[in-house]
Amino acid sequence: MRAVDIIIKKRDKQELSKTEIDEFIAGYTSGEIADYQAAAWAMAVLINGMTPRETTDLTLAMAHSGETLDLGKVVPIALDKHSTGGVGDKTTLVVEPIVAACGLPVGKMSGRGLGFSGGTLDKMEAIPGYRTDLTTEEFLSQLVEEGLVLTGQTADLAPADGKLYALRDVTGTVQSIPLIASSVMSKKIAAGTRAIVLDVKVGLGAFMQNLDEGRALARLMVDIAHLAGREAVALLSDMNQPLGHAVGNALEVHEAIETLHGKGPVDFREHCLQVASHMLVLGGKARSESYGLDLAQEALAEGTAWAKFKRLVSCQGGDVRFVEEPQRLPVAPFIRMVESPETGYLSCIDAREVGETALTLGAGRVRKGEPIDHAVGIEILNKVGDNVQAGQPLFVVHARDEGAFELARQRLLTAHHWSQELVDPLPHFYGTIR
Amino acid sequence: MRAVDIIIKKRDKQELSKTEIDEFIAGYTSGEIADYQAAAWAMAVLINGMTPRETTDLTLAMAHSGETLDLGKVVPIALDKHSTGGVGDKTTLVVEPIVAACGLPVGKMSGRGLGFSGGTLDKMEAIPGYRTDLTTEEFLSQLVEEGLVLTGQTADLAPADGKLYALRDVTGTVQSIPLIASSVMSKKIAAGTRAIVLDVKVGLGAFMQNLDEGRALARLMVDIAHLAGREAVALLSDMNQPLGHAVGNALEVHEAIETLHGKGPVDFREHCLQVASHMLVLGGKARSESYGLDLAQEALAEGTAWAKFKRLVSCQGGDVRFVEEPQRLPVAPFIRMVESPETGYLSCIDAREVGETALTLGAGRVRKGEPIDHAVGIEILNKVGDNVQAGQPLFVVHARDEGAFELARQRLLTAHHWSQELVDPLPHFYGTIR
Repeated sequence: MRAVDIIIKKRDKQELSKTEIDEFIAGYTSGEIADYQAAAWAMAVLINGMTPRETTDLTLAMAHSGETLDLGKVVPIALDKHSTGGVGDKTTLVVEPIVAACGLPVGKMSGRGLGFSGGTLDKMEAIPGYRTDLTTEEFLSQLVEEGLVLTGQTADLAPADGKLYALRDVTGTVQSIPLIASSVMSKKIAAGTRAIVLDVKVGLGAFMQNLDEGRALARLMVDIAHLAGREAVALLSDMNQPLGHAVGNALEVHEAIETLHGKGPVDFREHCLQVASHMLVLGGKARSESYGLDLAQEALAEGTAWAKFKRLVSCQGGDVRFVEEPQRLPVAPFIRMVESPETGYLSCIDAREVGETALTLGAGRVRKGEPIDHAVGIEILNKVGDNVQAGQPLFVVHARDEGAFELARQRLLTAHHWSQELVDPLPHFYGTIR
Repeated sequence: MRAVDIIIKKRDKQELSKTEIDEFIAGYTSGEIADYQAAAWAMAVLINGMTPRETTDLTLAMAHSGETLDLGKVVPIALDKHSTGGVGDKTTLVVEPIVAACGLPVGKMSGRGLGFSGGTLDKMEAIPGYRTDLTTEEFLSQLVEEGLVLTGQTADLAPADGKLYALRDVTGTVQSIPLIASSVMSKKIAAGTRAIVLDVKVGLGAFMQNLDEGRALARLMVDIAHLAGREAVALLSDMNQPLGHAVGNALEVHEAIETLHGKGPVDFREHCLQVASHMLVLGGKARSESYGLDLAQEALAEGTAWAKFKRLVSCQGGDVRFVEEPQRLPVAPFIRMVESPETGYLSCIDAREVGETALTLGAGRVRKGEPIDHAVGIEILNKVGDNVQAGQPLFVVHARDEGAFELARQRLLTAHHWSQELVDPLPHFYGTIR
């Protein structure tokens, strides 16, 4: 079948066969099908949609478009977690050590931040020396020996997804649930994942702004996993306000370390424990989530998770002194606290605005490959529902200079909304999809 | 505005401003906007549509993307006709000489055939020596001196349209009324046309298969002309069965010559007279269509149109002996008549199937730039509504060999349908849009 006929079929709202999807992805990977054909096709998919069957076939076609890893030889069950991305989301830094401390090996390949959304690799690189470019061999041997790895993609996994993802970014075809779901799942399947906890963020600071979209994406990713013979569970979690307090790379590492010490913000700690408990159940370590929760809490209380984190840092070349004494981490030259101009109940702390502000401070990048500033960032001191008094501390800006601080201050003040009525706190989770 | 934001706006069913359309087309022409972005945009336009205002802005942006001709300096009114393409459509070969013979200069830039649809340049090139590659200077001087030119595009007119048209062909984005209308009209406006008769074909052998689509396209093109300060009238004409009898390049030239001699098939002659009369009205030569019709008939009866045609051929380097004695035109080696296998009223002669059969005989091309065979083709001897007896001549195939003939015979028999009930003839026209 010609590429143009496959495009026309999707344009005309027909369901593509597995063969058609396989041919299209194979042709696109080899370069026989041009970017402009893939772009027209992606727009037709975005507007006309895809069935779960088509999306699964697309996922598998992309997963098998390059090398694949078989982790079954080195670990009993290849376990992973994935967050759809948000503001202040340093969950991996805490969850992976907890799970590893409970005896389940976790080898995770993470990504970098883009736009308002942060990335795990950028955060870990705030620790001097920490390597995120392990080879496949290093990845596998560390996984066997230490039971914990956190690095970038080691091999040319799912190259079709890499190509399509870059194309979607410049052709207005990012915001498609089937394309997002197949992109995430194809990389995970290529990386050999057998069981995964999906952390689907919903709200102002997430790619999915409303619960229905988030639920649809979660449902689809879990269905794809099942159709592909994998295990998965998806948590729908709130991303209307930032997760925890810290937004910015070194600040988030600092907050993760506090949390590993059994402290840290209540909402972030709760989030990590929930994600960890689902991983422990999927990995066969806990029979129930409540038992998984007990195990995870123990790993924090007994310091085993913290020990694992330090071991991770040193194994990957990071200077452990910087996590043992996190005040050594990069510090911004201009740090200033801002007080609340009003008295009332906080009704909104717009996570998107907070993320965009961190981006303008230099904590993130607009285009791939741009350098970032690990020191800068924001501490949001309150949560929606809190009663704050005028003059009480509202947020802290860590900036390069006073000009950047001033811009951030103004933007962050407009990100906060007050109400004179009592405001309920936001839920941490909106549900679980199995 | 970034290209991706313009794509997203159209993806989300919003109306683009003139500035956005101008920027997008300018960026695409310069290469700053990539093919893949234009492809995603074209798919969004195809699925979500465009308003007449957007389509007019797109037309003008493409018309002004390269050189433009100003024919106002050499002719009182730059007059043109355009057919949306069909099977057996040799109208230009008869209409332009008629109009020129009535004293209105006509300088026409025509196209080549693609797929089942024939092209005027291919037909004229059946005449040995006939040049379709005049320069702009040759075009203008012949228009002034002879009042009649029929050639290919002389300059780099509407390059954005050329680029987008080629892209649409390979991205499944051809079948969009706003994109078809803007493509046609941008080239006409760039070529300096002030008044145009649009011959919008509707039916099995046309790009527009049903009357509603044809009417929408005609309405849109006329509206664009008016919004761009031009005059236009559109005729909706039947293309369910082939126009006239002959399908194939030399055969069609032969039929056009017979028609210029006042003979030829009734339906084709009628079609030419109607198109010519509308051109004569638009060009200010006739106050009414019925008077235009009288003038056109006179031009045929008195031989002035025929004289103009011969002059056109000789001015452009063609060997006039081949049109004076059209039996000299290329002749296929294998010519055979096929009799009707049935008795009844013809209820369908599928123009699309006839066009596709001529293509397989070698009369057309599947891809741009392919060579074609001027000698081969088909003569369809009847019209829908005719009563034919079994054994009576049904069609003649002009083929390269017996194998090609046999394939054509089978396909053409299935293109004919008979009924035992009386069948009304098909109308020539479905209406006029002003």
